Amino acid sequence: MKNAIKTFVTICMIVCLLPIEALAQQALWGNAPVISPEIHENNTVTFRLRAPKAVKVQVMGDCIAKGVADLVENKEGVWEYTTPEPLKPELYGYTFLVDGLKINDPSNVYMIRDVATVTNVFIIGGERADLYKVNDVPHGTVSKVWYDSPTAGFDRRLTVYTPAGYETSGKRYPVFYLLHGMGGDENAWSELGRATQILDNLIAQGKAEPMIMVMTNGNLVMEAAPGESSWGYVPPTFQLPKTMEGSFETHFPEVVKFIDKHYRTKANKKSRAIAGLSMGGFHSLHISKQYPDMFNYVGLFSAAIMPGKNATSPIYENMEGKLATQFAKKPALYWIAIGKTDFLYKANVEYRKLLDEKGYPYEYFENEDGHIWRNWRIYLTEFTPKLFK
Amino acid sequence: MKNAIKTFVTICMIVCLLPIEALAQQALWGNAPVISPEIHENNTVTFRLRAPKAVKVQVMGDCIAKGVADLVENKEGVWEYTTPEPLKPELYGYTFLVDGLKINDPSNVYMIRDVATVTNVFIIGGERADLYKVNDVPHGTVSKVWYDSPTAGFDRRLTVYTPAGYETSGKRYPVFYLLHGMGGDENAWSELGRATQILDNLIAQGKAEPMIMVMTNGNLVMEAAPGESSWGYVPPTFQLPKTMEGSFETHFPEVVKFIDKHYRTKANKKSRAIAGLSMGGFHSLHISKQYPDMFNYVGLFSAAIMPGKNATSPIYENMEGKLATQFAKKPALYWIAIGKTDFLYKANVEYRKLLDEKGYPYEYFENEDGHIWRNWRIYLTEFTPKLFK
Repeated sequence: MKNAIKTFVTICMIVCLLPIEALAQQALWGNAPVISPEIHENNTVTFRLRAPKAVKVQVMGDCIAKGVADLVENKEGVWEYTTPEPLKPELYGYTFLVDGLKINDPSNVYMIRDVATVTNVFIIGGERADLYKVNDVPHGTVSKVWYDSPTAGFDRRLTVYTPAGYETSGKRYPVFYLLHGMGGDENAWSELGRATQILDNLIAQGKAEPMIMVMTNGNLVMEAAPGESSWGYVPPTFQLPKTMEGSFETHFPEVVKFIDKHYRTKANKKSRAIAGLSMGGFHSLHISKQYPDMFNYVGLFSAAIMPGKNATSPIYENMEGKLATQFAKKPALYWIAIGKTDFLYKANVEYRKLLDEKGYPYEYFENEDGHIWRNWRIYLTEFTPKLFK
Repeated sequence: MKNAIKTFVTICMIVCLLPIEALAQQALWGNAPVISPEIHENNTVTFRLRAPKAVKVQVMGDCIAKGVADLVENKEGVWEYTTPEPLKPELYGYTFLVDGLKINDPSNVYMIRDVATVTNVFIIGGERADLYKVNDVPHGTVSKVWYDSPTAGFDRRLTVYTPAGYETSGKRYPVFYLLHGMGGDENAWSELGRATQILDNLIAQGKAEPMIMVMTNGNLVMEAAPGESSWGYVPPTFQLPKTMEGSFETHFPEVVKFIDKHYRTKANKKSRAIAGLSMGGFHSLHISKQYPDMFNYVGLFSAAIMPGKNATSPIYENMEGKLATQFAKKPALYWIAIGKTDFLYKANVEYRKLLDEKGYPYEYFENEDGHIWRNWRIYLTEFTPKLFK
């Protein structure tokens, strides 16, 4: 395939030089003969930016060993930097810093929004990162779906993944509810988390069961992600969640009811999983203990554990009693994952200590680094193969 | 609702000042207390950018009367410009120009990609532009769906809109195939074209029939939009389409077959429409005459008409004979729309002359301006209410 692309690229470069009919939409092809990022055969990467008037250009991101590196200008005003070492397989994000101003790479339309920041991305394939890529395997369908929410008082949006073959199989499927962190929304897991690619690939490899995956919006004052709701234009700085005070947990059975009504689900505890990152891990913890007959698989990814002092919802009352009930019902899997430098590491140590004291069984996965999407993608690839077996 | 938002925003601003638990994902809330754009009550708009080291900052876009305007710097290094006049209802795009470097507005996460350029957007509501907004009406489901394509040799991606209630109604629905222009993809109509919002709103107002809408990828060498295919990272400059040489038209019955198999469609000519913009109008013209029993409604939006000299596909042979067959079968609607300054205006005058000479009936809609998304959104709002009545 790589050769096919190269041939095609060569053809296109030739064609581009011809005076073909200019069926141009506005901004067609942009104004960028600059190639950035350029991923070389050996997985070093070159970043480029045309900025002839700039005094200093830097690139920042998790692909840069020291976090930030200076680009060097050539005589055409194009700045350039190549990583000294090949990059390991991973999905990387970066931005440029031009005389102190953070900007996106105009040559790279691959961007992902994380809360209120848009970052350019690229993937170095290989190893686990191959799970993050769109590969030549059967693909599930990814849908943006609205459901009526009596507790919220308005319609709200979900992302639903149905596995390849769902439309015509006639079969019923188990359901995995996957929750985002604070400031995220129903787009976070499918974009930053590569959750739909991970599911496609794990299912194609026979490592995960075909399943429906539901990615909710955990901020109950919001209808949907920024720009997708009837709020119209709202500065993203103000999209603070109504999130960790019990309302989302109280609301959650509405979601399960909607999914069981609108999809061919296996509508029972045995066939339901819930997991989430950070605040979504907190939600998963408190939802699963509040409704102990709902979920057989629970995943806490870098989870917050305890509610804040001002959270007075009944959801958070009698935590130990509810955990006792939940574990008495023997969930098939209670899975906790966190990175060693995560700021929630200590809270998770304490929570595991509580579970240990009570003799509640769980699996534990610990790795390097902290509270970052790289880890949450890893946790998803580790957790999902354990479900519904 | 506006008051509710204001109250919420005020609460959030207060909450933001509190030392709440920092459940921060990386980049949480960004670093931007700068508000941009700020849409005032009277629909003037203020643009702002923090760039203390910049010498000159400008804003460019269709929201700026002269196309470009200078921002003025305050002592905190924040540059600002307010439109002298209120903006008319419309979806607007803009970018900043900082010392000659085009950048997106870091305070505005609302962005849309058009081919290889990413532009910030905002909507001024009212009149027709209310159709472009997410309103408090029942929402259809928007799905990214992969279909197997024997003619392409790989799986390809579609965007499918199913109207509110589809999942549970048990009913069959007519299908509207909506095609993008050169350089676009299966995301173009749902993003730049606001097609799913337009459908939601027209259906909710009783102006359009509930229908399925299918947005294809008209570039047959591509699997899917940039970043969504197994090609991995490909510089967008090279995404030149295989588009106007007959292969997409030849391929099209595969799409119709897939949709009829996977959705509850009314699988007959009476219940099928096809329309497209620019190259998509060209495709609609040639597909509908090639398969005269397939579509009852045809829409050419700023359409290219004649194939290039090098297009030797049988699809383009015997154009007059095929048109004669198509019109002998009396399509319910043949609709042509174009703006007065469109570079394809003359080609459309000539085509209408041909249709007039032959006595083939069509409806014609002409308006101001040229080959731009603003017009294509208008054409969609005009065309869709005429379908399946």
